[in-house]
Amino acid sequence: MNGTPRTDDNSMLNRLLRLLRQRRWAALATSAADGSPMASMVAYVPGDNAGCLYLHLSQLAAHTGNLLANGKAALVIGEEDNGSGDPQELARVTLQGQAVVVARDSEEYRQARERYLERLPASARLFDFSDFLLFRLDIDSARFVGGFAQARSFDRDALCNVLMR
Amino acid sequence: MNGTPRTDDNSMLNRLLRLLRQRRWAALATSAADGSPMASMVAYVPGDNAGCLYLHLSQLAAHTGNLLANGKAALVIGEEDNGSGDPQELARVTLQGQAVVVARDSEEYRQARERYLERLPASARLFDFSDFLLFRLDIDSARFVGGFAQARSFDRDALCNVLMR
Repeated sequence: MNGTPRTDDNSMLNRLLRLLRQRRWAALATSAADGSPMASMVAYVPGDNAGCLYLHLSQLAAHTGNLLANGKAALVIGEEDNGSGDPQELARVTLQGQAVVVARDSEEYRQARERYLERLPASARLFDFSDFLLFRLDIDSARFVGGFAQARSFDRDALCNVLMR
Repeated sequence: MNGTPRTDDNSMLNRLLRLLRQRRWAALATSAADGSPMASMVAYVPGDNAGCLYLHLSQLAAHTGNLLANGKAALVIGEEDNGSGDPQELARVTLQGQAVVVARDSEEYRQARERYLERLPASARLFDFSDFLLFRLDIDSARFVGGFAQARSFDRDALCNVLMR
């Protein structure tokens, strides 16, 4: 904590959670077999708590192959840039973790699908496509940047204590 | 080309270029030494042609260390999500390439700094900070997605033929 007041950490965590709830479209970083970084835009929905989120991805996309071979992933969620002012002042959070496939016949799949369609109703058709897989991203750490030179890191425990409903 | 009409490729390339010119804030994917993917938001400006762009990054940030150790990078630039409709229909482009540091005393640095400040005037102070480095991202390939199931790839030659002024 380096002497940082606890209240300041809480305020940064609250801003992080607001961003996580408000947004639904984020950039996913994965690694190819040769270690090359790959970046792509994906839809996401938070899980029951802030320690995980769900991605519904096509096996036709390169990022999905990367995740199936090596589940390490990072997702960056940012406030929208409207093109004016200094973009460095925009809030953003990088979540780092491990992606695992959720079995299609599980209760978790059913519940996550429901959450997903609540937030992303236009995605309903994608759940009928056989090439789509539902991944849970288990978040190991979060790095929130609230603006220029305002950053705070949170570990999995801090995130798992926060309910997202 | 798979029999795709040339005009269709040109229309997709034009949409890609419009996105590249309109936006200034994008998600950068880099790889850490252990191969873990890292994602972060960065400002960018296009170079003289569409075959490269410039990033001005602090050595205090993890992505900069990753790029100095291994220049492989991907940048995804997307249309803004306003929270309504289907985000899968938003245009986005992933640029994959190699990042190299531009020497501070070079003519390229002077010209790129000028371009950068034209588009991102609030960043002027950052050019006085000794921990910031200017990188040129040499783009090897671009994958443009114009909406759900509408994608096209472009190689370096196609991008280098397009002037960005």
